Amino acid sequence: MLTRSAKRLLGRTLPRYHNEAPLKPAHLSSILYLQRSNTPLNGDCSGLPKGISKKESFCGHRMHSTTGFRVAEPLQLGMTEMVPDLVPLPSDIRYDDLVITTSKRLQAKPRLDATTLKFGAVYTDHMLQVSWKDGLGWTAPSIDPLGPISLHPCAQVLHYAVECFEGMKVYKGKDGQLRLFRPEMNMDRLARSAARLTLPKFDKVELLECIKELVRVERDWVPDAEGFSVYIRPTMIGTHPFLGVGPTREAMLYVILSPVGPYFPSGLKPIKLYVETENVRAFSGGVGNYKIGGNYAPTILPQLRGSHLGCSQVRDLSITSLYHLVVALPESPFAARFPALSNAQH
Amino acid sequence: MLTRSAKRLLGRTLPRYHNEAPLKPAHLSSILYLQRSNTPLNGDCSGLPKGISKKESFCGHRMHSTTGFRVAEPLQLGMTEMVPDLVPLPSDIRYDDLVITTSKRLQAKPRLDATTLKFGAVYTDHMLQVSWKDGLGWTAPSIDPLGPISLHPCAQVLHYAVECFEGMKVYKGKDGQLRLFRPEMNMDRLARSAARLTLPKFDKVELLECIKELVRVERDWVPDAEGFSVYIRPTMIGTHPFLGVGPTREAMLYVILSPVGPYFPSGLKPIKLYVETENVRAFSGGVGNYKIGGNYAPTILPQLRGSHLGCSQVRDLSITSLYHLVVALPESPFAARFPALSNAQH
Repeated sequence: MLTRSAKRLLGRTLPRYHNEAPLKPAHLSSILYLQRSNTPLNGDCSGLPKGISKKESFCGHRMHSTTGFRVAEPLQLGMTEMVPDLVPLPSDIRYDDLVITTSKRLQAKPRLDATTLKFGAVYTDHMLQVSWKDGLGWTAPSIDPLGPISLHPCAQVLHYAVECFEGMKVYKGKDGQLRLFRPEMNMDRLARSAARLTLPKFDKVELLECIKELVRVERDWVPDAEGFSVYIRPTMIGTHPFLGVGPTREAMLYVILSPVGPYFPSGLKPIKLYVETENVRAFSGGVGNYKIGGNYAPTILPQLRGSHLGCSQVRDLSITSLYHLVVALPESPFAARFPALSNAQH
Repeated sequence: MLTRSAKRLLGRTLPRYHNEAPLKPAHLSSILYLQRSNTPLNGDCSGLPKGISKKESFCGHRMHSTTGFRVAEPLQLGMTEMVPDLVPLPSDIRYDDLVITTSKRLQAKPRLDATTLKFGAVYTDHMLQVSWKDGLGWTAPSIDPLGPISLHPCAQVLHYAVECFEGMKVYKGKDGQLRLFRPEMNMDRLARSAARLTLPKFDKVELLECIKELVRVERDWVPDAEGFSVYIRPTMIGTHPFLGVGPTREAMLYVILSPVGPYFPSGLKPIKLYVETENVRAFSGGVGNYKIGGNYAPTILPQLRGSHLGCSQVRDLSITSLYHLVVALPESPFAARFPALSNAQH
């Protein structure tokens, strides 16, 4: 299967490559396979350039990385031998390269019941994914049936939390139109979080176009009821299999969707807050201003403590929280905790 | 294949189950499959209890979790129908349950060259792995050929850094004996880190016995040269596929080994230190006293800054570092950075 951009390129010059000679079909099949380097190991090999057998192009890459570049490297070597001037430059994410494979087994949509539709527990049928490797850049993005991610046990994300994410929502208006809320600001923050962790840069406009395409593929999942929406979770992880703490050499960006109800199913009523005095969530010189995984794991235990006391949210007493107005009723069991607040204000 | 403990149990009572009736072979095959619940989807089904077809026991669990319990749940249901009193209690890690499958394709060992044997870039042929699920406990641990880990894209570890690890070493003495250095202290710290992230408890003595078995399987990897050793990396990750920030319901513990040379290949010479004044690594009320993933990702960028200035290590100026003696030579480009240290001491 040719990508849209590959079809367009036939017979033209290819600006992302060093040479500017018109492309021939033989080049195209090489480029196609470089772009489609997240082809699974059992993928269709009928388009392989002549002189490269299925065996040699797939051999020895089983443990190499997540989904990206398993096929790219041996093909690139083979290609360079055949077409010496055709050396690819690191490529960015391009909407025009997007390849869509729809699922043949669609799930039933969940009931729109705010009390049973738990946040983040139901996922739609497809995901967007794209892989990156230092020096080679991003592979062609693809929308595929939601499926497991295969990682080397030494992948950075599993040891050093090289991971960041975003939270966005798509709503269906009364006019039936789907709308995202300031998504370009989410792209900006994702890029800032990624840079803080040495995760790769990406073209924010092109990624957003790919996310919009995923939303279009899953448009039937967007609920038509007030307070309901589809939550969008772009995630970037460091997949480089290396136990040394060092900059990312391989990464993966993927986007999953989850239908959600109102954040507070009981409506905007007063809720019980647990005032956390031990765990400090954000601090000067820290990374609280980035949406990265490591900021979240330590908050689970305080949340459990609050939950055991019947509270639905945690009020963190870190420095930035002191501007909030907190009123403790004298009979409240939390009143005793406020000396800690006074201490922090000294 | 029966596990050692399964063989031992035939005809005896089984204390980990509620009923105390003597076991019959029919029960045993059920228990065996509960214990071996990390059997891959294409695993051998010849030992399945009668009345449960391969199809129904494997159906619908493709996306369920990492490697654990894919087979356990439907079998447990089937088993409960057949043997109503046989309800398993949550199980802990047990060395006696360990199942070893050795690799048929062993790698060549790396050359013992301190300048080329990079820390954490070479791995041995096998890994130890064991999965956990809330209410069911730990599966039987297994030593398997090193292979990829398959995760649901919503697994907690990929979003909220629900991950902790240990760093241990095994040395070969002049007498040819292999020795670990105070490994029980690593087990203690792993348990503390896990508890901080709501990751599960485990039997520390039994896990250590399993790690020792992994070391025995890989004994030929332990170098016989001064300064060289095999680094041991126990890792625990939250695998529960849930986007809400909440306590862990599924987890995986695995151990990988990596042959390493001396920490400073150039010997104990003076090194250049980069004095980091912006990023604060540890702070009062934070989680710097736990060996968790989120503490590491933010340190990569400061390390890169130092590396660009020709420094091989980073000296962090967080509160706990102020007890170190730092001397800046007046001609050093870092001398200008010391006002920050003075500020911190105020």
